[in-house]
Amino acid sequence: MAGTNSTQASVLGGPIVVLVEPQLGENIGMAARAMLNCGLTELRLVTPRDGWPSDDAIAAASGADCILDAARLFPTAEAAIADLHHVYATSARPRGMVKTILTPRFAVGRMRTQIAAGRRCGLMFGAERMGLVNDHIALADTVISVPLNPAFASLNLAQAVLVVGYEWFQSGDATSPHAISGGGDEPAPKAELLNFMMRLEAELDDCGFLRNQEARPSMVRNLRNLFQRAGATEQELRTMHGVLKCLTEKRKRIDSERKD
Amino acid sequence: MAGTNSTQASVLGGPIVVLVEPQLGENIGMAARAMLNCGLTELRLVTPRDGWPSDDAIAAASGADCILDAARLFPTAEAAIADLHHVYATSARPRGMVKTILTPRFAVGRMRTQIAAGRRCGLMFGAERMGLVNDHIALADTVISVPLNPAFASLNLAQAVLVVGYEWFQSGDATSPHAISGGGDEPAPKAELLNFMMRLEAELDDCGFLRNQEARPSMVRNLRNLFQRAGATEQELRTMHGVLKCLTEKRKRIDSERKD
Repeated sequence: MAGTNSTQASVLGGPIVVLVEPQLGENIGMAARAMLNCGLTELRLVTPRDGWPSDDAIAAASGADCILDAARLFPTAEAAIADLHHVYATSARPRGMVKTILTPRFAVGRMRTQIAAGRRCGLMFGAERMGLVNDHIALADTVISVPLNPAFASLNLAQAVLVVGYEWFQSGDATSPHAISGGGDEPAPKAELLNFMMRLEAELDDCGFLRNQEARPSMVRNLRNLFQRAGATEQELRTMHGVLKCLTEKRKRIDSERKD
Repeated sequence: MAGTNSTQASVLGGPIVVLVEPQLGENIGMAARAMLNCGLTELRLVTPRDGWPSDDAIAAASGADCILDAARLFPTAEAAIADLHHVYATSARPRGMVKTILTPRFAVGRMRTQIAAGRRCGLMFGAERMGLVNDHIALADTVISVPLNPAFASLNLAQAVLVVGYEWFQSGDATSPHAISGGGDEPAPKAELLNFMMRLEAELDDCGFLRNQEARPSMVRNLRNLFQRAGATEQELRTMHGVLKCLTEKRKRIDSERKD
């Protein structure tokens, strides 16, 4: 039953993450956190150096304990991938093996196709110091290599998990790339913006700011363009009406005091 | 002069990373490593809690010391962004402010346009525990929000730097999404593959594997398809010729011994 559940979870939840001989519990925990950030849930560990379970892993997981609790231990990489149909090995270095190399962005699209067809995919990561050895890479169908600064391309283990997981999540995500926050606040209708602008311009006529009649049309245009670009909401226009009222009241009071 | 150099470096090197009140030196170091992974070089720190410089930062940077050595300290976020033209604030939480929110992937395209026009862009990240406060977000033109598992969206500081830096690097990178490794090894010409297949088929005729004449055509097709799909190189075909020779020599020796 556990096997069946695990299989269902992996089919629904994306590729299975296989960490081969990871060294520090802290890195396993940070990898688990990155997995859960990206909606990946199934973790397999091949002979973690510092033992298992690991308090360091739990501390570094920052709440992603469910990933660690469900993690399964395997004695070899071969055993960890035995039930998988497609294995992707992550590597920063070319290996002199004839092997397809994909960017993470391209690879996740292929994984989605494979997983949608009911296949189980694995993402294999090597140890912190050296990454995967050639014997482990030879077990994989495909190499994933992350395009990065060629002078400094080596990612921390959890960072490597995050990059591939991030691409996995993006490939299935429908978030608009461009949105406006503010709890449903919309830009005010143009009539309200123009109403404010006309009041502003009247006040500026009144105080003499727009007294140069030759320059006036372009100054009005420039001011309208500035407020236009700000895309004010109705609430923000009400605030600006208040600002204008308050600024002019003071001036008007001084003016009337002078007249007295 | 230092200011001029710094400006040139940032225009060439991408957005400036501004960490506002970071807590742990270790996280600053890991952020520096992630920056250099992604070709980002200019780091600004607003009052790091545990002081500066930091041995923990240097240890965690794993060789990205140049980023830490050149990092500049500022007393406030306002001072840290004073010379920038566009500021992007990263945030996992909506803030009730009317503000444009972009995904990292969309945002980096906008940054490239701005930087190509000679503007200086900043990427502002908040402290580990809570991220940026609203007063800091109000300093920014744009919010960047990373689409992630909504039930577990909070990224470690260095992970957040990595995700945006990764998208920055990808947006300027020309790596083929699909490549073959192996130091220039190409699939063998089809004539060499067919030559091997015909030799294999002759041996299989000889040993009786293909004796069923009705099934023979489809078995041959299936074998050819399998080897076809492997995309063997010339070197690999030479190896397979050797394998075939060795396998059949043993059988032939046994056959001839039996005849003796």
